Amino acid sequence: MTEPIRHSWTDIRDRIHARLLDRTYRPGDKLPRDEDIAQDLGCARSTVQRAMRDLADAGLVERKRKGGTTVRADPVTRATLDVPITRAEVEALGSVYGYHLLLRDLAVTPPAIAATLALRKPVEMLHVEALHLADQRPYILEDRWISLETSPEILGVDLAVESANEWLVRNKPYSRCDLRLYAIEANARTALQLDTPVGAALLVIERTTWINEAPITTVRSVTKPGYQMLTQI
Amino acid sequence: MTEPIRHSWTDIRDRIHARLLDRTYRPGDKLPRDEDIAQDLGCARSTVQRAMRDLADAGLVERKRKGGTTVRADPVTRATLDVPITRAEVEALGSVYGYHLLLRDLAVTPPAIAATLALRKPVEMLHVEALHLADQRPYILEDRWISLETSPEILGVDLAVESANEWLVRNKPYSRCDLRLYAIEANARTALQLDTPVGAALLVIERTTWINEAPITTVRSVTKPGYQMLTQI
Repeated sequence: MTEPIRHSWTDIRDRIHARLLDRTYRPGDKLPRDEDIAQDLGCARSTVQRAMRDLADAGLVERKRKGGTTVRADPVTRATLDVPITRAEVEALGSVYGYHLLLRDLAVTPPAIAATLALRKPVEMLHVEALHLADQRPYILEDRWISLETSPEILGVDLAVESANEWLVRNKPYSRCDLRLYAIEANARTALQLDTPVGAALLVIERTTWINEAPITTVRSVTKPGYQMLTQI
Repeated sequence: MTEPIRHSWTDIRDRIHARLLDRTYRPGDKLPRDEDIAQDLGCARSTVQRAMRDLADAGLVERKRKGGTTVRADPVTRATLDVPITRAEVEALGSVYGYHLLLRDLAVTPPAIAATLALRKPVEMLHVEALHLADQRPYILEDRWISLETSPEILGVDLAVESANEWLVRNKPYSRCDLRLYAIEANARTALQLDTPVGAALLVIERTTWINEAPITTVRSVTKPGYQMLTQI
């Protein structure tokens, strides 16, 4: 018996992907067993398994426990979106990052915020509004509510210097995050803060995080006009 | 020597994740070696590897070949977005799907489309405009260009009956997809088609696909007012 050549799992994935692309394996088809593909391609079964996991993650095939692998008949476009710390995002663009604290206030959560956070009743939280700048121009306007139950330390943070965005990302890991993307028209206040005409269409990135079942924060990041989220699959 | 208990990799991942959440392992820390974690948790090393891959995919840790695993100091919010066939999306909402072909025309690609598709020079493509409906109300307006080089068969498809969206997803697998999300204000034409006021803020989902280096299609899906993309991490 000859030793199998060591193929990387990405090579094997690309070879199986090529067979999906050229329709050797067609939508709805059941693929050969991992063992058989491994033998065919001259690699270890575990390498085929790793490759299949990646193709399944990409939404191209479906894996069933013991039921083998099927080519998805209606593949979805499955994209990975990264939302970095805003400072890091601005600096990655080659721009100079800036930050202004606009509001820091203890307040009772309004109904929409309580609903987003899945609160049973309104509670007092820290309400923060801040403007992130790129090259001294408005970039993202963030409107955030922070739970004092899960993040009491936030009261000791000087939010005029360090953004709640950075402090929370670094200090408050979450177990669940809801992400919501939508468009809004700039109202008078938002237009003034983002230096844009009233009624301008703006992309909103809303994130809400929990640790176990307890809310940490919800933030509505209103982006400047023309902002785009990009990803490549 | 006792047999290790069989733990699922998701159990092990959750246990390692819990240590990230409770800051047993802190941002910037180097984690113990996989072998040591495996011994500690009483599972196989391959199970720890599988778990670590998942935590790395989620943006929580960084793996280096031979360099071990580090807790990311600045974790990113890494979300997976699924863009299904529009019919499937509408039906998943419990609505009745409808579809109108608005335009089907051979035309030379305008500069913006040629740029998006990374064409070296303008070429003739099939230009299609169609409206997707949910319960007889406008849902998504799609403006699409289809390459006749990679999809000549599209000329034989009755696009009044079958949407280009469905036909392409089912028949034209791609090797690369660019996804772009942004907001626009409805112009007079878009407003009329989506039955919305001129100037309404609308979320746009733009997708461009290639097979190897050859363009397949680019589509600008303008969503109805209030449309949201949601995902949970």
